[in-house]
Amino acid sequence: MAILPPFGDQDFYSKMRDLKWSSTEKTIARRCFDRALQQDLDAAIQSTKEMAAKIRQASELWELEHHLTQLRKEIDRKYQYKYSTLVLFFADLVREGKLDPEDLRRLSEDKLRHIRRHAGQSAA
Amino acid sequence: MAILPPFGDQDFYSKMRDLKWSSTEKTIARRCFDRALQQDLDAAIQSTKEMAAKIRQASELWELEHHLTQLRKEIDRKYQYKYSTLVLFFADLVREGKLDPEDLRRLSEDKLRHIRRHAGQSAA
Repeated sequence: MAILPPFGDQDFYSKMRDLKWSSTEKTIARRCFDRALQQDLDAAIQSTKEMAAKIRQASELWELEHHLTQLRKEIDRKYQYKYSTLVLFFADLVREGKLDPEDLRRLSEDKLRHIRRHAGQSAA
Repeated sequence: MAILPPFGDQDFYSKMRDLKWSSTEKTIARRCFDRALQQDLDAAIQSTKEMAAKIRQASELWELEHHLTQLRKEIDRKYQYKYSTLVLFFADLVREGKLDPEDLRRLSEDKLRHIRRHAGQSAA
Protein backbone atom coordinates (compact mmCIF):
# COMPACT_ATOMS: atom_id res chain seq x y z
CA MET A 1 0.00 0.00 0.00
CA ALA A 2 1.27 3.48 -0.85
CA ILE A 3 2.78 5.49 1.99
CA LEU A 4 0.74 8.36 3.33
CA PRO A 5 1.63 11.86 2.13
CA PRO A 6 3.47 14.06 4.66
CA PHE A 7 1.44 15.59 7.46
CA GLY A 8 0.20 19.03 6.45
CA ASP A 9 -0.22 18.09 2.82
CA GLN A 10 -3.98 18.00 3.31
CA ASP A 11 -4.86 18.58 -0.30
CA PHE A 12 -2.49 15.94 -1.63
CA TYR A 13 -5.21 13.51 -2.60
CA SER A 14 -7.29 16.17 -4.30
CA LYS A 15 -4.17 17.10 -6.29
CA MET A 16 -3.73 13.47 -7.26
CA ARG A 17 -7.35 13.18 -8.32
CA ASP A 18 -6.96 16.28 -10.47
CA LEU A 19 -3.98 14.98 -12.41
CA LYS A 20 -4.75 14.28 -16.04
CA TRP A 21 -3.33 11.14 -17.60
CA SER A 22 -2.79 11.13 -21.37
CA SER A 23 -3.23 7.90 -23.29
CA THR A 24 0.58 7.61 -23.58
CA GLU A 25 0.94 8.05 -19.81
CA LYS A 26 -1.80 5.48 -19.19
CA THR A 27 0.09 3.01 -21.36
CA ILE A 28 3.34 3.66 -19.46
CA ALA A 29 1.55 3.42 -16.12
CA ARG A 30 -0.18 0.18 -17.00
CA ARG A 31 3.05 -1.38 -18.24
CA CYS A 32 4.96 -0.43 -15.07
CA PHE A 33 2.08 -1.57 -12.86
CA ASP A 34 1.74 -4.92 -14.63
CA ARG A 35 5.48 -5.54 -14.57
CA ALA A 36 5.73 -4.84 -10.83
CA LEU A 37 2.74 -7.11 -10.17
CA GLN A 38 4.29 -9.89 -12.23
CA GLN A 39 7.59 -9.53 -10.35
CA ASP A 40 5.79 -9.89 -7.01
CA LEU A 41 3.78 -12.86 -8.30
CA ASP A 42 6.94 -14.54 -9.61
CA ALA A 43 8.58 -14.02 -6.21
CA ALA A 44 5.47 -15.46 -4.52
CA ILE A 45 5.56 -18.54 -6.77
CA GLN A 46 9.25 -19.03 -6.05
CA SER A 47 8.91 -18.69 -2.25
CA THR A 48 5.93 -21.06 -2.27
CA LYS A 49 7.79 -23.72 -4.24
CA GLU A 50 10.75 -23.45 -1.86
CA MET A 51 8.55 -23.70 1.25
CA ALA A 52 6.61 -26.67 -0.15
CA ALA A 53 9.75 -28.55 -1.16
CA LYS A 54 11.05 -28.31 2.42
CA ILE A 55 7.87 -29.57 4.14
CA ARG A 56 8.57 -32.53 6.42
CA GLN A 57 5.71 -32.35 8.94
CA ALA A 58 2.05 -31.35 9.05
CA SER A 59 2.56 -28.07 10.91
CA GLU A 60 4.54 -26.83 7.90
CA LEU A 61 1.49 -27.44 5.69
CA TRP A 62 -0.51 -24.95 7.71
CA GLU A 63 2.42 -22.52 7.76
CA LEU A 64 2.36 -22.66 3.97
CA GLU A 65 -1.40 -22.06 3.97
CA HIS A 66 -0.87 -18.99 6.19
CA HIS A 67 1.99 -17.81 3.97
CA LEU A 68 -0.25 -18.00 0.88
CA THR A 69 -3.12 -16.19 2.61
CA GLN A 70 -0.77 -13.38 3.66
CA LEU A 71 0.69 -13.15 0.15
CA ARG A 72 -2.76 -12.94 -1.42
CA LYS A 73 -3.95 -10.23 0.97
CA GLU A 74 -0.74 -8.25 0.56
CA ILE A 75 -0.89 -8.39 -3.24
CA ASP A 76 -4.62 -7.53 -3.28
CA ARG A 77 -3.96 -4.52 -1.02
CA LYS A 78 -0.89 -3.31 -2.90
CA TYR A 79 -2.07 -3.68 -6.48
CA GLN A 80 -5.11 -1.50 -6.95
CA TYR A 81 -4.95 0.27 -10.28
CA LYS A 82 -6.39 3.70 -9.49
CA TYR A 83 -5.12 6.91 -11.10
CA SER A 84 -5.68 8.74 -7.80
CA THR A 85 -3.00 6.61 -6.09
CA LEU A 86 -0.65 5.65 -8.95
CA VAL A 87 1.83 8.42 -8.17
CA LEU A 88 2.32 7.19 -4.59
CA PHE A 89 2.37 3.60 -5.85
CA PHE A 90 5.19 4.38 -8.30
CA ALA A 91 7.05 6.40 -5.64
CA ASP A 92 6.96 3.35 -3.36
CA LEU A 93 8.28 1.10 -6.14
CA VAL A 94 11.11 3.51 -6.96
CA ARG A 95 12.06 3.81 -3.27
CA GLU A 96 12.08 0.01 -2.93
CA GLY A 97 14.26 -0.35 -6.01
CA LYS A 98 11.54 -2.28 -7.83
CA LEU A 99 10.99 0.29 -10.58
CA ASP A 100 13.63 2.05 -12.64
CA PRO A 101 12.80 5.80 -12.69
CA GLU A 102 13.91 5.77 -16.32
CA ASP A 103 10.77 3.79 -17.16
CA LEU A 104 8.65 6.73 -15.97
CA ARG A 105 10.50 9.51 -17.80
CA ARG A 106 7.69 10.08 -20.31
CA LEU A 107 5.22 10.98 -17.58
CA SER A 108 4.43 14.68 -17.20
CA GLU A 109 6.74 16.84 -15.10
CA ASP A 110 4.11 17.43 -12.40
CA LYS A 111 3.71 13.68 -11.90
CA LEU A 112 7.47 13.09 -11.86
CA ARG A 113 7.88 15.86 -9.28
CA HIS A 114 5.36 14.19 -6.97
CA ILE A 115 7.00 10.79 -7.51
CA ARG A 116 10.48 12.19 -6.76
CA ARG A 117 9.20 13.93 -3.66
CA HIS A 118 7.50 10.83 -2.24
CA ALA A 119 10.22 8.43 -3.31
CA GLY A 120 12.66 10.56 -1.29
CA GLN A 121 15.17 10.67 -4.08
CA SER A 122 15.93 12.75 -7.15
CA ALA A 123 16.45 9.97 -9.65
CA ALA A 124 12.92 9.96 -11.10
CA MET B 1 -16.52 -37.64 9.56
CA ALA B 2 -18.14 -40.91 10.62
CA ILE B 3 -21.24 -41.99 8.68
CA LEU B 4 -24.55 -41.70 10.47
CA PRO B 5 -26.02 -44.86 11.96
CA PRO B 6 -28.97 -46.37 10.05
CA PHE B 7 -32.36 -44.72 10.41
CA GLY B 8 -34.30 -46.31 13.24
CA ASP B 9 -31.20 -46.94 15.34
CA GLN B 10 -32.18 -44.07 17.61
CA ASP B 11 -30.27 -45.29 20.61
CA PHE B 12 -27.04 -45.93 18.70
CA TYR B 13 -25.19 -42.99 20.20
CA SER B 14 -26.28 -43.82 23.73
CA LYS B 15 -24.98 -47.36 23.13
CA MET B 16 -21.67 -45.91 21.94
CA ARG B 17 -21.43 -43.64 24.97
CA ASP B 18 -22.06 -46.63 27.24
CA LEU B 19 -19.24 -48.74 25.79
CA LYS B 20 -16.39 -49.27 28.23
CA TRP B 21 -12.86 -49.06 26.91
CA SER B 22 -10.17 -50.98 28.78
CA SER B 23 -6.66 -49.55 28.94
CA THR B 24 -5.54 -52.14 26.36
CA GLU B 25 -8.37 -51.10 24.05
CA LYS B 26 -7.52 -47.44 24.53
CA THR B 27 -3.93 -48.17 23.52
CA ILE B 28 -5.09 -50.04 20.40
CA ALA B 29 -7.56 -47.27 19.53
CA ARG B 30 -5.00 -44.53 19.96
CA ARG B 31 -2.45 -46.38 17.83
CA CYS B 32 -4.96 -46.97 15.00
CA PHE B 33 -6.21 -43.39 15.22
CA ASP B 34 -2.70 -41.90 15.15
CA ARG B 35 -1.61 -44.13 12.29
CA ALA B 36 -4.63 -43.17 10.17
CA LEU B 37 -4.06 -39.48 10.93
CA GLN B 38 -0.40 -39.76 9.97
CA GLN B 39 -1.33 -41.52 6.70
CA ASP B 40 -3.71 -38.68 5.81
CA LEU B 41 -1.12 -36.06 6.76
CA ASP B 42 1.55 -37.80 4.68
CA ALA B 43 -0.85 -37.87 1.72
CA ALA B 44 -1.59 -34.17 2.28
CA ILE B 45 2.13 -33.34 2.32
CA GLN B 46 2.67 -35.35 -0.85
CA SER B 47 -0.24 -33.76 -2.75
CA THR B 48 0.86 -30.29 -1.64
CA LYS B 49 4.44 -30.82 -2.82
CA GLU B 50 3.17 -32.07 -6.19
CA MET B 51 0.78 -29.12 -6.63
CA ALA B 52 3.46 -26.60 -5.66
CA ALA B 53 6.06 -28.09 -7.99
CA LYS B 54 3.65 -27.69 -10.94
CA ILE B 55 2.75 -24.03 -10.29
CA ARG B 56 3.37 -21.86 -13.33
CA GLN B 57 0.98 -18.94 -12.80
CA ALA B 58 -0.49 -16.94 -9.93
CA SER B 59 -3.97 -18.48 -10.07
CA GLU B 60 -2.39 -21.80 -9.12
CA LEU B 61 -1.01 -20.20 -5.93
CA TRP B 62 -4.52 -19.45 -4.75
CA GLU B 63 -5.69 -22.91 -5.82
CA LEU B 64 -2.99 -24.33 -3.57
CA GLU B 65 -4.12 -22.04 -0.73
CA HIS B 66 -7.70 -23.32 -1.19
CA HIS B 67 -6.45 -26.92 -1.35
CA LEU B 68 -4.61 -26.48 1.97
CA THR B 69 -7.61 -24.85 3.65
CA GLN B 70 -9.85 -27.71 2.54
CA LEU B 71 -7.32 -30.30 3.73
CA ARG B 72 -7.03 -28.64 7.14
CA LYS B 73 -10.81 -28.44 7.62
CA GLU B 74 -11.30 -32.02 6.45
CA ILE B 75 -8.62 -33.38 8.78
CA ASP B 76 -9.88 -31.29 11.72
CA ARG B 77 -13.41 -32.60 11.13
CA LYS B 78 -12.39 -36.23 10.61
CA TYR B 79 -9.89 -36.65 13.43
CA GLN B 80 -11.67 -35.99 16.70
CA TYR B 81 -10.57 -38.52 19.29
CA LYS B 82 -13.81 -39.22 21.19
CA TYR B 83 -14.71 -42.64 22.56
CA SER B 84 -18.36 -41.99 21.70
CA THR B 85 -17.56 -41.90 17.98
CA LEU B 86 -14.47 -44.15 17.69
CA VAL B 87 -16.49 -47.18 16.60
CA LEU B 88 -17.99 -45.33 13.63
CA PHE B 89 -14.60 -43.76 12.90
CA PHE B 90 -12.93 -47.18 12.72
CA ALA B 91 -15.83 -48.57 10.66
CA ASP B 92 -15.26 -45.79 8.12
CA LEU B 93 -11.54 -46.53 7.97
CA VAL B 94 -12.14 -50.26 7.48
CA ARG B 95 -14.70 -49.59 4.72
CA GLU B 96 -12.27 -47.22 2.99
CA GLY B 97 -9.48 -49.79 3.17
CA LYS B 98 -7.39 -47.50 5.36
CA LEU B 99 -7.40 -49.75 8.41
CA ASP B 100 -6.72 -53.48 8.54
CA PRO B 101 -9.49 -55.12 10.65
CA GLU B 102 -6.76 -57.37 12.03
CA ASP B 103 -5.37 -54.34 13.92
CA LEU B 104 -8.65 -54.13 15.86
CA ARG B 105 -8.98 -57.79 16.80
CA ARG B 106 -8.18 -57.22 20.47
CA LEU B 107 -11.16 -54.91 20.92
CA SER B 108 -14.14 -56.39 22.73
CA GLU B 109 -16.68 -58.41 20.72
CA ASP B 110 -19.46 -55.81 21.18
CA LYS B 111 -17.24 -53.11 19.63
CA LEU B 112 -16.16 -55.37 16.78
CA ARG B 113 -19.79 -56.23 16.07
CA HIS B 114 -20.68 -52.53 15.76
CA ILE B 115 -17.62 -51.91 13.58
CA ARG B 116 -18.46 -54.85 11.28
CA ARG B 117 -22.04 -53.71 11.00
CA HIS B 118 -21.17 -50.12 10.08
CA ALA B 119 -18.25 -51.05 7.87
CA GLY B 120 -20.67 -53.19 5.89
CA GLN B 121 -18.35 -56.17 5.85
CA SER B 122 -17.57 -59.18 8.00
CA ALA B 123 -13.80 -58.91 7.99
CA ALA B 124 -13.42 -57.06 11.32
